[in-house]
Amino acid sequence: MLHVSGEPIPGAVDAVRRLRGAGHRIRFVTNSTTMSRAQLGERPRALGFAIEDDELQTTGSVASRVLKGKRVLALTMPGILDDLDGLQLIGMNAEAVLIGGADETEETGRIFSYLNLNRAFLELQAGADFYCLHRNRWWQTAEGPRLDAGAFVSGLEYVSGIEATVLGKPSPEYFGAALEAIDADPELAWMVGDDLEGDVGGAQKHGMRTVLVRTGKFRPDELEGSTVMPDGIVSSIAQLPDWLEQNL
Amino acid sequence: MLHVSGEPIPGAVDAVRRLRGAGHRIRFVTNSTTMSRAQLGERPRALGFAIEDDELQTTGSVASRVLKGKRVLALTMPGILDDLDGLQLIGMNAEAVLIGGADETEETGRIFSYLNLNRAFLELQAGADFYCLHRNRWWQTAEGPRLDAGAFVSGLEYVSGIEATVLGKPSPEYFGAALEAIDADPELAWMVGDDLEGDVGGAQKHGMRTVLVRTGKFRPDELEGSTVMPDGIVSSIAQLPDWLEQNL
Repeated sequence: MLHVSGEPIPGAVDAVRRLRGAGHRIRFVTNSTTMSRAQLGERPRALGFAIEDDELQTTGSVASRVLKGKRVLALTMPGILDDLDGLQLIGMNAEAVLIGGADETEETGRIFSYLNLNRAFLELQAGADFYCLHRNRWWQTAEGPRLDAGAFVSGLEYVSGIEATVLGKPSPEYFGAALEAIDADPELAWMVGDDLEGDVGGAQKHGMRTVLVRTGKFRPDELEGSTVMPDGIVSSIAQLPDWLEQNL
Repeated sequence: MLHVSGEPIPGAVDAVRRLRGAGHRIRFVTNSTTMSRAQLGERPRALGFAIEDDELQTTGSVASRVLKGKRVLALTMPGILDDLDGLQLIGMNAEAVLIGGADETEETGRIFSYLNLNRAFLELQAGADFYCLHRNRWWQTAEGPRLDAGAFVSGLEYVSGIEATVLGKPSPEYFGAALEAIDADPELAWMVGDDLEGDVGGAQKHGMRTVLVRTGKFRPDELEGSTVMPDGIVSSIAQLPDWLEQNL
């Protein structure tokens, strides 16, 4: 939503600056399960966006908030471990099992091994709560589709009979964490995104107001076929400051 | 049903001999997914039972019958490979994906690896049919419960949107294979077993007649709480020849 293929959306850097100038508190929210806030912030900062690490919300940072202080068996990519601060990451006797997303490295096979999945099953059977960062089925890589963590979340739900709580977008936990971080009431907060179901639909269920941007994931036919309707639609985030001034 | 903890059920060897003498054609049916017919036959033969390999029906032998001649990506334990004759076991461009049960060896982790599961997912996405030997959640070992193949079957169903066909008991394919092997009509064939749901219930759905034995898995309270009712109940297989003489 801020940048595409290594280039900032035209006018986006200035738009973020104007939003701050108008007094808006901002959280940049992403469903990435492979990078920490520090890593995720590098690219937009290199492109000129003034973004602090604690303004970035990742699925890992939501897990850290929801599971703070708990003993957690985390089957997650190493990249997000920095965001899981405050959790006791352990191998047995867990209070919660947390499944993260897959990535393209060999770590995925190491983490989603039979041994680790069996361990997660035993903890669930012994009473641990069950969380996941998302339950995506697969994602597209240069070499073709790759199996994502949804397969393992679903498989562990089947064997344990316990449903996993999703912590990423569009879960209530996710939007709740962002609102708490900026101390905002949902009806006075705007979710701005390019994903009609995940961003707009999810935030609306949480009572937030929404703006859809026509960049990135946006597809006109998705909008036509959907019952989800944002409060506003803008060409890109560059138009957002003007739109908010006229519609607030 | 024939033996328990290395000892034959008293009278069982003689009962099998009497059934043969009375002209019954017999198939010994098992849901094992870790041993071939040749391996499975060793123990009962050592205990005195006269059993030929081709009288033993395993889940692998049913897969061999159902998938004969097809190109199959098989994630199964090495022990059953002997029974999968007639299948073209391949790593890509498969017509069918076959998931077998786990065992206690390290082979389980090697076979249910992320790489292999991703491969199975890609074949399913490309149009392969989906089969499994069973969809058990877990089984009990000396070291505690262990995750079984049901986790991976269920996970791949979730990501692919394709439901797996179960080939083991109590599937129609399983009982159908046994009946075809002895060229028997279901209503003239008797399923004898200790598992009320899997043996008796499954065979009844297939139109067969049934006898429950009070050995092995049999639990009186299961019979009381169930809507499944066998045609006959005997203390053990030793009583079966007399029971059949009186009730045929």
